[in-house]
Amino acid sequence: MSSILAVGSIAYDTVETPFGSREDVLAGSVTYFSVAASHFVPVAVVAAIGEDFREEDLGILKSRGIDVSGVERLPGRTFRWAARYSEDLNDRETLSTELGVFADFKPAIPEKHRKPPYLFLGNIDPGLQMQVCESVERPRLVACDTMNFWIEGRREALLRTLGAIDLLIINDEEARMLSGEANLIPAAKKIRALGPRSIVIKRGEYGAAIFTEGFTGLLPALLLEGVVDPTGAGDSFAGGMLGVLAALGTTDAPSLLLALAAGTVMASFTVQGFGMEGLLGATPGAIRRRHAELASLVGAVPRDLPLARG
Amino acid sequence: MSSILAVGSIAYDTVETPFGSREDVLAGSVTYFSVAASHFVPVAVVAAIGEDFREEDLGILKSRGIDVSGVERLPGRTFRWAARYSEDLNDRETLSTELGVFADFKPAIPEKHRKPPYLFLGNIDPGLQMQVCESVERPRLVACDTMNFWIEGRREALLRTLGAIDLLIINDEEARMLSGEANLIPAAKKIRALGPRSIVIKRGEYGAAIFTEGFTGLLPALLLEGVVDPTGAGDSFAGGMLGVLAALGTTDAPSLLLALAAGTVMASFTVQGFGMEGLLGATPGAIRRRHAELASLVGAVPRDLPLARG
Repeated sequence: MSSILAVGSIAYDTVETPFGSREDVLAGSVTYFSVAASHFVPVAVVAAIGEDFREEDLGILKSRGIDVSGVERLPGRTFRWAARYSEDLNDRETLSTELGVFADFKPAIPEKHRKPPYLFLGNIDPGLQMQVCESVERPRLVACDTMNFWIEGRREALLRTLGAIDLLIINDEEARMLSGEANLIPAAKKIRALGPRSIVIKRGEYGAAIFTEGFTGLLPALLLEGVVDPTGAGDSFAGGMLGVLAALGTTDAPSLLLALAAGTVMASFTVQGFGMEGLLGATPGAIRRRHAELASLVGAVPRDLPLARG
Repeated sequence: MSSILAVGSIAYDTVETPFGSREDVLAGSVTYFSVAASHFVPVAVVAAIGEDFREEDLGILKSRGIDVSGVERLPGRTFRWAARYSEDLNDRETLSTELGVFADFKPAIPEKHRKPPYLFLGNIDPGLQMQVCESVERPRLVACDTMNFWIEGRREALLRTLGAIDLLIINDEEARMLSGEANLIPAAKKIRALGPRSIVIKRGEYGAAIFTEGFTGLLPALLLEGVVDPTGAGDSFAGGMLGVLAALGTTDAPSLLLALAAGTVMASFTVQGFGMEGLLGATPGAIRRRHAELASLVGAVPRDLPLARG
């Protein structure tokens, strides 16, 4: 039994940033997600790869104990994506998208994975996300990612998916687009009214917020040197976050804040290397140290403010 | 005896934002600073006003218990500044600057204020900031603000001032300009090597960081609705911060983090009103509640991360 089932893409990325470039390297939403989450609980992935997919890349996931029996090898090429990042890494231009086997991807959930305690729906067509929800026994928690492409082009399907999930993890730009609200407080409120009990809004290098019934959490991202490639940061964040929620089995305020911290920590490794390099270099000791650093940065705010009167 | 002596500008601002406008309203660096700091310790201000300055505006400071005996009324008009903010409030265009009595401002420190335990040097010519330092007995802590105008145009004078202060409070853009480093970690390191033992780098709506020997603190800003005018946020931040440091009399890590939180809280009131309206509406009860909210947003990050192994 796996604690988290993750459904999404496995890809080969070609990325160019001001700090270097990499060609055809292992990437994709479930790849980043599962490696990050695997530090906390067992993970199984469902995805499609092409005939050209390198066996040793599957070995990378296996070496992290990830169950890849749901990874289907299909006739054709593996999904490929190429992009170039701006000088400050805050913008990127997609140079090419070659869907390959991903074009006709219909996630088939193996029998043994149809009772996942935790389910992560990576950034794929919301119609497929909904099909996955319908083909498994109701998990304890369903988390979901999406992007502006689906918010604009598949709004109705996305709204149906939002009605079936517990936790939406998106960035601030996507939250504004989905809600039509510029301010994150009403944006989160509107999105929660669409279905998800909780929403995480990521703010890139500035951190992330979680909004849920009766609790709002807000953490800055770690201040980092040596940031070279933001690709996969969002999926690594989701992996750390859901990994901790699955490990704890609780969703009270301290658990959510700890999960937010773990997401922040896992993403911090990813951005310091190209492709999966940074994340794969994260050892349990390094993860512990970075979490302690984050907790120290923010965690000691005394409650007693020395007001002169009142 | 006053716990903080603040030297800087008192002004009449005319401000236009997407949410409204105000003409010739009370403003200026020491005005925002002193009102914010007055919630924690006694404050005295040194500044210049013109013949046109309204007595009731001085009354606003007096009503907060602020010692205005160092405010000099000079022949001529009060310093005036007019600006228009962009749609998202992140950019502003200065429409006019009328220096008035501020043009020849030479801060004269009254005899009774020459032994200030804490000194705040508002954003004025760094040569004048240095003169103030030289005309008082060494305070326990000197905090200082500056801006790109002085960083570019008066670099040598600013470097001398930096050699005489303990705490520099600037924003991220200014830190990058002063240090020549895009990343805040090396930027803070370089600036601390110029003199100040500690540096606070403000990141607008995203929060603020403090860098000091052996400790880095980082807090997000409060998520706010109803933000209408960012003018004075930086000085209010400095006021809350120095107010808490003066009230505590300590500069250990918890004190610095609490001061950072108090700065964040005081600035949050300022941006929710035009001119001084938001800050003047902050009651001790509201300040306490907002601080508790900030502490709750970030303050409960558990230290024990549920890693699977290691």
